[in-house]
Amino acid sequence: MSTSSSSIAKQVHAFGNTAATQPLQQLNINRRNPTPHDVEIEILFCGVCHSDLHTAKNEWHNTVYPCVPGHEIVGRIVTVGNHVKKFRVGDLAAVGCMVDSCRECDYCKEGLEQYCEPGMTGTYNAPDKHLNTHTFGGYSESIVVDESFVLRVPENLDPAATAPLLCAGITTYSPLKHWNVGKGKKVGIVGIGGLGHMAVKLAKAMGAEVIVFTTSPSKFEDARRLGADDVVLSKDEKQMRRYARKLHFVLDAVSAQHDINAYLNLLRVDGSLALVGAPELPLPVAAFSLIPKRRSFAGSMIGGIAETQEMLDFCGRHNIVSDIELINIGQINEAYDRLLKGDVKYRFVIDMASIKK
Amino acid sequence: MSTSSSSIAKQVHAFGNTAATQPLQQLNINRRNPTPHDVEIEILFCGVCHSDLHTAKNEWHNTVYPCVPGHEIVGRIVTVGNHVKKFRVGDLAAVGCMVDSCRECDYCKEGLEQYCEPGMTGTYNAPDKHLNTHTFGGYSESIVVDESFVLRVPENLDPAATAPLLCAGITTYSPLKHWNVGKGKKVGIVGIGGLGHMAVKLAKAMGAEVIVFTTSPSKFEDARRLGADDVVLSKDEKQMRRYARKLHFVLDAVSAQHDINAYLNLLRVDGSLALVGAPELPLPVAAFSLIPKRRSFAGSMIGGIAETQEMLDFCGRHNIVSDIELINIGQINEAYDRLLKGDVKYRFVIDMASIKK
Repeated sequence: MSTSSSSIAKQVHAFGNTAATQPLQQLNINRRNPTPHDVEIEILFCGVCHSDLHTAKNEWHNTVYPCVPGHEIVGRIVTVGNHVKKFRVGDLAAVGCMVDSCRECDYCKEGLEQYCEPGMTGTYNAPDKHLNTHTFGGYSESIVVDESFVLRVPENLDPAATAPLLCAGITTYSPLKHWNVGKGKKVGIVGIGGLGHMAVKLAKAMGAEVIVFTTSPSKFEDARRLGADDVVLSKDEKQMRRYARKLHFVLDAVSAQHDINAYLNLLRVDGSLALVGAPELPLPVAAFSLIPKRRSFAGSMIGGIAETQEMLDFCGRHNIVSDIELINIGQINEAYDRLLKGDVKYRFVIDMASIKK
Repeated sequence: MSTSSSSIAKQVHAFGNTAATQPLQQLNINRRNPTPHDVEIEILFCGVCHSDLHTAKNEWHNTVYPCVPGHEIVGRIVTVGNHVKKFRVGDLAAVGCMVDSCRECDYCKEGLEQYCEPGMTGTYNAPDKHLNTHTFGGYSESIVVDESFVLRVPENLDPAATAPLLCAGITTYSPLKHWNVGKGKKVGIVGIGGLGHMAVKLAKAMGAEVIVFTTSPSKFEDARRLGADDVVLSKDEKQMRRYARKLHFVLDAVSAQHDINAYLNLLRVDGSLALVGAPELPLPVAAFSLIPKRRSFAGSMIGGIAETQEMLDFCGRHNIVSDIELINIGQINEAYDRLLKGDVKYRFVIDMASIKK
C-alpha cells in the first residue's frame, strides 16, 4: 500500500490520554491527507464502548500512547478521493471497529475481515499503514478511512443513536445471524447492557421469541420495553428451570465472571451459546453440559464489513437504534466512572461538536 | 408398550457384580421372551468400554445392582418375532449403547435417539420397559432387543474386532460426520486410546488430513500405523505451534483433566473442538480462546441408530475395525485393572463363548 501521498498530514483536535493512570484530555493528532480511495469524515457522534475504557487504562496490556479511543463513529463525508465510488461529499457515513485488513487472506475474501489472518487494523491502537504511528479513534474532529471500510447510514435513523450500532449493534447482530436466529426460535439474551439491550431489539426484529436473563430485578420492566417476551431472574434456580433444554441459542453479553454451565443447560440439542462479553478469567465448563445434548460453547467478534452494512440496513428497515445518553467530550472521564458502575442506559454517545468549543 | 407377553422370561448366564466394591462374577439374569418386534441374539463378542467400568464401580453414582455391563455387542440372531422385517435367524447382528427410546419426541423422529428428550433406554443400568427390573448388558449369553435398535453387521469384517465399533466407533464417527470432516480438512485427534484410535482410522478413511496429538512419544509409531499424517507431542509448545490456527476440527477423546485452551488455539476461524471423553472436573475455557476466531467448544454422545448403521456400512466398505485384545470372560476383572493403567491396544473384547464353559 502506497504511503507516499499520505505522508502529508493535517493536525486535528482529539481527546485521549498519554498514560494508563492519566484521565483523557484534549490533545492534537495527525490525520493523513486522503488518498484516491479514502474519504475524510467530519465526526458528528462517537459511542463509548467498554473497550475504549479497557484500552485507555491499558487493561489488556497492549496500549500504545497517546491513546485516542472510539470505534462507534457516525459523521458527514467532507472529502472524497478521486477513485471513491460509494460516497459523495455530504453523505452520512459510519466507521466501526476496523479501518483496514490484509484484504488477501481467505477470511478477508469471504467478508470476514474481523478474523483477518495477519490481523485487521483496529480503528484505534493498531499500527497505522499510512503514517508512522498507530491508529487514533473517533474521539476526534475527523477521521480519514479507505472507503472499503466505511459504511452508509440509513437516513431515517437518529445519527447519535446509530453510532453504537457500529460496535454494540454488529457484535450482537453477527452471532444472531450466524446461529440462524429467526422465526420459530427461542433465544436467550444474558445481561442487559450496551450489547444485551441491542441483542434484544435485534433478535425480536428477526422474529425470534426472546427471553432475557438478568441478575437484577430492576431491569425486568426495561427488558419488556426493549421487546423481551419473558424475563428470568438468573439467580433464581426455579425460574431458570422453566427454560431448561428449551432454547435454540443463547447470546451471553456478560463480561463479569459467571456460571456458564447454568446457561449451557438451557440449550436444546444442537443449541449454541455464543459469548460476546469477555470475562477476565477462564470459565469452567462441565463436560456434561456439552456432551449429552451436543451443545456448543462459542465466541463471536464484531462482524465483517458487508455484514455491518447489512445490519445498518436491517436497523433502518426496522427503525432500530441504541438507547443512549448523549454527553459532551468534557464528560468522558465521568462517563467512564459511571460505565464501571453499570450506570448507563444503555450507551453513552459523545456529541463531537463539543470538541470544537 | 405391552408387557404381558414378555412377562414370561428365561434365565441366562451373565457376568456382573452386586456392589461397587465387588469384582464381577458369574450370575443369572432374566431375558424376556421375544415380542413380535424383538429378536433374540446369541452374543458372540462384547467389547469392554470404560463406561462399563465406571458403571460397575458406581463412579457415576447411579448404578443399580446387580450390574451386568457391556454395550458393544456382536452376535447371531437365534429367534425372530412374528413382525420382524430386517432380520432372519442366522444373521450376524449388533447392539450398541441403546436398546430403546421414546420414539415420539422431535429428536427420536430426527434419528437422534441418543438425545431422546425423556431419555434413551441404555443397554444396561436403565429401567427395563418389559420386565420389572433394569436392563442388563452384553456380558451375557444372549439378549432380546426390538429390531429397531439392532444393527446389521457387514459380513466381511471380523466380528470380534467389529464389536467396539458399536460404542467407540459411533462415538467418533458421529462427530466427524456432524462437523463435516472429509477431503480438504485438517483434523486433530487428541488422545490415542479406544476412542482415539478409531477416530484416526475413520477420519483418514473420510479423506481428511489427520494429525494426532499425544502426551506419549511411545504412541508416535502406532499413530502413523493407524493412518495419522503427522503426530505432535502435545507437551511440546514448539510442536503445538506448528498447527496453531490450522485445524478445521479437533476431536478430543481424553478423559483426564487437560488444558482445553491449548487445543482450541489450534482451530481456524469457525473451527470446532468436540469432546467425547468426559473429564470429571470442569475444564476452564478462556473467552479469548473462542471469541477472536468464532471457535466452538462442543460435545457429542454416541450416534443415532440410522447413523450407527451408516457407520458400520462405512467400516465394511473401508475394511475398518478396532485393534483388539481378545479375552475370556474370566479375565474381565484383570482387564479392568489394565484399563485403568491404559494398558490395552486398543480395546478388550470378550469372547462370549467362554461364559458357557
